[in-house]
Amino acid sequence: MVTLTRSYGERVLKNSAVMLVQCPDQKGLDAAIADFIFQHDGNILHFEQHQAGEERFYLARVEWDLSGFQLPLDHFPEKFTPVAKKFGMHWGVALTSYRPRVAVFVSKYDHCLVDLLYRQRNGELACEIPLIISNHEDVRRHADFHGVPYHVIPVSKGTKREAEVAQQRLLGEHKIDLIVLARYMQILSPEFIANFPQRIINIHHSFLPAFIGAKPHQQAYDRGVKILGATAHYVTEVLDDGPIIEQGVVRISHKDGLDDLVEKGRDLEKVVLSRAVRWHIENRILLYANKTVIFE
Amino acid sequence: MVTLTRSYGERVLKNSAVMLVQCPDQKGLDAAIADFIFQHDGNILHFEQHQAGEERFYLARVEWDLSGFQLPLDHFPEKFTPVAKKFGMHWGVALTSYRPRVAVFVSKYDHCLVDLLYRQRNGELACEIPLIISNHEDVRRHADFHGVPYHVIPVSKGTKREAEVAQQRLLGEHKIDLIVLARYMQILSPEFIANFPQRIINIHHSFLPAFIGAKPHQQAYDRGVKILGATAHYVTEVLDDGPIIEQGVVRISHKDGLDDLVEKGRDLEKVVLSRAVRWHIENRILLYANKTVIFE
Amino acid sequence: MVTLTRSYGERVLKNSAVMLVQCPDQKGLDAAIADFIFQHDGNILHFEQHQAGEERFYLARVEWDLSGFQLPLDHFPEKFTPVAKKFGMHWGVALTSYRPRVAVFVSKYDHCLVDLLYRQRNGELACEIPLIISNHEDVRRHADFHGVPYHVIPVSKGTKREAEVAQQRLLGEHKIDLIVLARYMQILSPEFIANFPQRIINIHHSFLPAFIGAKPHQQAYDRGVKILGATAHYVTEVLDDGPIIEQGVVRISHKDGLDDLVEKGRDLEKVVLSRAVRWHIENRILLYANKTVIFE
Amino acid sequence: MVTLTRSYGERVLKNSAVMLVQCPDQKGLDAAIADFIFQHDGNILHFEQHQAGEERFYLARVEWDLSGFQLPLDHFPEKFTPVAKKFGMHWGVALTSYRPRVAVFVSKYDHCLVDLLYRQRNGELACEIPLIISNHEDVRRHADFHGVPYHVIPVSKGTKREAEVAQQRLLGEHKIDLIVLARYMQILSPEFIANFPQRIINIHHSFLPAFIGAKPHQQAYDRGVKILGATAHYVTEVLDDGPIIEQGVVRISHKDGLDDLVEKGRDLEKVVLSRAVRWHIENRILLYANKTVIFE
Repeated sequence: MVTLTRSYGERVLKNSAVMLVQCPDQKGLDAAIADFIFQHDGNILHFEQHQAGEERFYLARVEWDLSGFQLPLDHFPEKFTPVAKKFGMHWGVALTSYRPRVAVFVSKYDHCLVDLLYRQRNGELACEIPLIISNHEDVRRHADFHGVPYHVIPVSKGTKREAEVAQQRLLGEHKIDLIVLARYMQILSPEFIANFPQRIINIHHSFLPAFIGAKPHQQAYDRGVKILGATAHYVTEVLDDGPIIEQGVVRISHKDGLDDLVEKGRDLEKVVLSRAVRWHIENRILLYANKTVIFE
Repeated sequence: MVTLTRSYGERVLKNSAVMLVQCPDQKGLDAAIADFIFQHDGNILHFEQHQAGEERFYLARVEWDLSGFQLPLDHFPEKFTPVAKKFGMHWGVALTSYRPRVAVFVSKYDHCLVDLLYRQRNGELACEIPLIISNHEDVRRHADFHGVPYHVIPVSKGTKREAEVAQQRLLGEHKIDLIVLARYMQILSPEFIANFPQRIINIHHSFLPAFIGAKPHQQAYDRGVKILGATAHYVTEVLDDGPIIEQGVVRISHKDGLDDLVEKGRDLEKVVLSRAVRWHIENRILLYANKTVIFE
Repeated sequence: MVTLTRSYGERVLKNSAVMLVQCPDQKGLDAAIADFIFQHDGNILHFEQHQAGEERFYLARVEWDLSGFQLPLDHFPEKFTPVAKKFGMHWGVALTSYRPRVAVFVSKYDHCLVDLLYRQRNGELACEIPLIISNHEDVRRHADFHGVPYHVIPVSKGTKREAEVAQQRLLGEHKIDLIVLARYMQILSPEFIANFPQRIINIHHSFLPAFIGAKPHQQAYDRGVKILGATAHYVTEVLDDGPIIEQGVVRISHKDGLDDLVEKGRDLEKVVLSRAVRWHIENRILLYANKTVIFE
Repeated sequence: MVTLTRSYGERVLKNSAVMLVQCPDQKGLDAAIADFIFQHDGNILHFEQHQAGEERFYLARVEWDLSGFQLPLDHFPEKFTPVAKKFGMHWGVALTSYRPRVAVFVSKYDHCLVDLLYRQRNGELACEIPLIISNHEDVRRHADFHGVPYHVIPVSKGTKREAEVAQQRLLGEHKIDLIVLARYMQILSPEFIANFPQRIINIHHSFLPAFIGAKPHQQAYDRGVKILGATAHYVTEVLDDGPIIEQGVVRISHKDGLDDLVEKGRDLEKVVLSRAVRWHIENRILLYANKTVIFE
């Protein structure tokens, strides 16, 4: 129940901690959490609480200043567990100073990769990117420019399992917290996905659930829609059906050919994907009923 | 091939004519049209031409000033037909001063009806609304306020054919040019639809083709999308599959319950539907390959 | 310091209370508030806390369920005051079941008035509208349709003071909580404004601070902007300088004449103004440093 | 009057020509242009004509296929001049195959530069970028990555004139058609600007005319606006007053600090600037009354 794993980052490194909590709603939850932090001399910076569903399931995100906080984070689980048990909380806490380790998967389209690397370098994304995995050589020069190791693991029908084994070995070696599929054009196996629950983010170049599957731009063009979409979502076993984290749209018209859709889509995909990644690494996302709750 | 039917309207009544043309592309098309108008002393106000598809199908909209134009519109077809035949044009011409006759169909939700009546009254929609047809009494007071006859024709499983006969009699009596389904909750029969090709506009409260069919807000809520849509389209025999005229979107979040979706959807549906109706009555829409070309 | 005045409304009338709090930040604030509510057997439905400025000023909104709450709201101030005093809180509490009393001021443009009345009638705006005040007869029929008393108080240079006296008498008689200037084209005197601090909302038809003052659409047209804006703000003594509550925009192009700007502006103004009014009557707005904090 | 200068580019290099025309409106303009092209066996691909102002000034863009066109573009001016003189046209024609030569000016913020280089490399911007000029060394590595010469010309109060002389020498040597100020933080002298009329595009990080001058993000933050803007415009002698080419906006809230505004602004500035540059190099912009007409 207790996971002291992923952490929270911001441009200016704050000396703070973040706790995410979910459980059935009961009286006294906010008081119990706020009291616990106060009793150990913490100053709460943000407290946001939401209730979901008809049964009003409780979901909360609390961030507090660690200066003067009397409880070392190492001892936090031990002390907080009695409180958590009393309310049946599912919870996790993380340090702002920890930078999650992100692996980017990419194929031939480089726009999302280039964008993620740029944002990571300028501090917008408070994470490490220790490696990039691709099934092609094509975009290596961007990895080289940013000094990120670039691993090519080709994938063909017969070698998929073997490729995934190699990928998972690398992910393990680099202690990867999050996998970002930045227009990676291979479908991962259910076994692979099961190893990274709520830890794989994909960008789909349509307004899901419209245009599920292959060639969404072609589908959008053929249907004559007036608005183009992009969707960042967690990857689950069912294709393009995982919890949606973020979506964006842009207007198109009859003047836009398929090439224009691709170009307009690029700008959209970059922004939507980077926002989803950011929310994840800043511990702003909770899941409830296959939907995301975003504490912006 | 020649139809001297629907017309063009604007806030300030212009003394102008609009021609819509489509045909396979050939050299000399623009010159032939522009020359014809110039030879009869017309001054072209707007000329916009688009090419669609890989074969570059020609689609154009031309509006010209009628002051000083030497050819009465009555004689236009006779004189222009030789030009049109030479190029194999499918065309139509209309007077700005003609106000299309629009029938609004409505059930119990009144927001689109109220909006259309308001826009028609203040001059945004240059059309007549000689009647409203509903399967319920509920929204009559808005019709009364604006002095528009309100006809209740109940529809049940057994009486659908009979109801449609009554509806079509009214539409015929009032020489209706366009039917607007302003959240009308009955599905029209293929026979009815066939009588009004490209002359029925519907508003669907989702971002088509996502959430086709009933209860799109519930579907959107259950899927956890981050953006809500609305779609105005021409009605064809296949449900929610007709050419899309306009779409709009609004952001939603986990904080929005189903009620909020309904409320946010209302604002969207009004704007999207009224824009589609306006483009239609101002002769700004051409169809090609089940898609619309909008000459804004 | 204690005001038990305005209240909180929602579509489904909830039996809940809302507290807004602001004060210098200190440790223990969240705990103190959450504890107080818990000790009286209240169940917190929403807790959102924000910190503003470099000194991290504390701003919070708390809503809790009153079923089972052991403290009658009448006695709330007496009991809560010691807590408030300890932290130097500026605070207020309101019942969801109280519907604020709103006076709408209007001149000749009726679109915002019509929109507000419609939203109030369908339950989107949980308020009473006991009267409309205008300096013209023009839009009376909409008031009549909704059965709202419509008072005409003409305003000319010489009669402004006298007119304001008459207006304030009406406002007092009807115990008005909030004044909404729905395209009211007269400038209120500083004395009038001083009587309703943070209780007058205006809609300005531009993206403030661009195009301050008269004829913003003309100014926008002359400058050739590509985006049109609208701004809802609290009225203060300095023209168009009060705290901004909400803004909206719509794209325009060289094809849009001044008339088109007016039409596109209407759709914008309605949505922006109604959102601001809603947030106000639902007690979702706090002020800090001439800026608004919106607890959506 | 005749300028056979800038050209037109697209992803797939089309063998076409583009003509931009403006003059007082008269009957027969469209016919004269379309006839001229038809007589020389050209097939018009796009014809769009707009009328501006109360006097209905004529503005048009025509693009035609050059396959089979009987008039070499070298001889075009000679042949077309009689037509142009008759109507008093101000006009220009350009080949699609010509790629305008663009100089990018930059200071320390690299996001717009990186974006422009990326779009030029992937074909979205059909231009050459033969050089980058900066007053700082900071962003040289991006120029190196793309293999574009990077010239540092420091600017201080005393050396401004001298620096501009050096800049203009480089621009002349490289036959630069267009200067793009990609967050270049120096103000150019009126003399410099006069040498490049309608040939310098700047990105201003606000919704002009709001927040003219220095530190627009700080100004926006202090005013508490709810929407952040960016504006691409031609540079004229009056600061931030040139014709607006494109604007974009993004929502912000009280949760966004100044740093967030800077980050959200970056995404906006990139998209807005690149769109303006593209329209310029594709000959889609005409000027009328200090405003732009965009033939999208």
